[in-house]
Amino acid sequence: MYLGRVIGCLWASVKNQSMVGQRLLVVQPLTPELKETGKCLVCGDSTGAGAGELIYWVRGKEASFPFLPTEPPFDTSIVGIVDSVHVKRPDPPAAPAAESGKRKRKS
Amino acid sequence: MYLGRVIGCLWASVKNQSMVGQRLLVVQPLTPELKETGKCLVCGDSTGAGAGELIYWVRGKEASFPFLPTEPPFDTSIVGIVDSVHVKRPDPPAAPAAESGKRKRKS
Amino acid sequence: MYLGRVIGCLWASVKNQSMVGQRLLVVQPLTPELKETGKCLVCGDSTGAGAGELIYWVRGKEASFPFLPTEPPFDTSIVGIVDSVHVKRPDPPAAPAAESGKRKRKS
Amino acid sequence: MYLGRVIGCLWASVKNQSMVGQRLLVVQPLTPELKETGKCLVCGDSTGAGAGELIYWVRGKEASFPFLPTEPPFDTSIVGIVDSVHVKRPDPPAAPAAESGKRKRKS
Amino acid sequence: MYLGRVIGCLWASVKNQSMVGQRLLVVQPLTPELKETGKCLVCGDSTGAGAGELIYWVRGKEASFPFLPTEPPFDTSIVGIVDSVHVKRPDPPAAPAAESGKRKRKS
Repeated sequence: MYLGRVIGCLWASVKNQSMVGQRLLVVQPLTPELKETGKCLVCGDSTGAGAGELIYWVRGKEASFPFLPTEPPFDTSIVGIVDSVHVKRPDPPAAPAAESGKRKRKS
Repeated sequence: MYLGRVIGCLWASVKNQSMVGQRLLVVQPLTPELKETGKCLVCGDSTGAGAGELIYWVRGKEASFPFLPTEPPFDTSIVGIVDSVHVKRPDPPAAPAAESGKRKRKS
Repeated sequence: MYLGRVIGCLWASVKNQSMVGQRLLVVQPLTPELKETGKCLVCGDSTGAGAGELIYWVRGKEASFPFLPTEPPFDTSIVGIVDSVHVKRPDPPAAPAAESGKRKRKS
Repeated sequence: MYLGRVIGCLWASVKNQSMVGQRLLVVQPLTPELKETGKCLVCGDSTGAGAGELIYWVRGKEASFPFLPTEPPFDTSIVGIVDSVHVKRPDPPAAPAAESGKRKRKS
Repeated sequence: MYLGRVIGCLWASVKNQSMVGQRLLVVQPLTPELKETGKCLVCGDSTGAGAGELIYWVRGKEASFPFLPTEPPFDTSIVGIVDSVHVKRPDPPAAPAAESGKRKRKS
């Protein structure tokens, strides 16, 4: 699953039958530090997520699981609304390239 | 799903049997702000989308759902024609890189 | 599906049983303007495509559909030989970045 | 499968029913040399991995196999905790670009 | 499928039950010209490939086909050992960018 934020929505009158009545939300993927990363996408939604909310989404066949027994051709859908994220990296991500240049072989 | 625009089409006389009679459209993926992003691809179509139209497409096994009970080996297909997209980002995407250069560690 | 060109082939004597007797072709992905894009890959083939031919290929589970009832573990395979591609982009792809800086709102 | 390190976790009260009671861990993908590579993701977990542990994870439909007969819509999940990795590259990865410019044909 | 070279292996005592007894190999993806490309990954193996060998691997659901009727959650696995690769590109890949700068519109 990936983190993301709901940043918009999409209207479509001509669409696959099994998608009728389903909300289509525009999602911006985020890093765990909540910075934007990668391309926006259009997700189905089974959680009732609203504009600006932090969510996590899945890709692939699993994206249609929440809608069973209907099988809308969703390849990405929101499956949860995030309350909080806790991240503790072993080393600062600020200078990953510098490390390889300065490293000293101790072992 | 992803946004895209139909920018062309493709003719193929030698192809998989289950694809005979299906239209093959060339699609340019777009961001929600409708700028081009990423590589063009060839999609099956179940919506009747025409040249220049704004559509959304799916990837993977779901791409063959609209054609059931036939199962053409489509891994990407157009599933809806977009009427409008509404996007409101929490912060301007214009200068994401500048932020990391100016940040001051307060904690 | 994606466009590509057959640029080579691959021999393998030790391989999965269900792949025995199947041709393995090296494919270079192409843009609709037929420029090289992205990494080469090894595709199964159900069309009889030859060296240098323009083809389109699929990725994922769909790649094994043309070989049913056998299910060789192909995740990419050629499903059609392209006769011609017609592409008409709404705006020239030569300077996509410049446009956003210079654009004037006419509507 | 891909290598990664557990760097955090995620709380979500609103989520897909079949995900209730499942841990959601934030994973940073790693190279075999244990350097960070690519985007963080949120994985389901069937191994009991803890913060900071080196793990390997799978993507796609396979990610829900460890949870059968339940089918939570996980598209990425941790399937093993790594004890050790042994890597021996045929040529040093430090200067792959320089090699092609300076190489001398010895054979 | 993609080309790659076995560059290492991985030990894991805690892992999914259906993976017990299966070898886990570290694979570096290669171009058809056998240069390194992209991220290393951990593959299941059904061919008996050894360290340094040139192989091709599959991604996705197909990666578990060689292990049927068991269904280990492998999303990448080695399915063949490569004897030889023959590649002939229509135009030299050395200067693809230069072409677009020098082209003269003849039509």
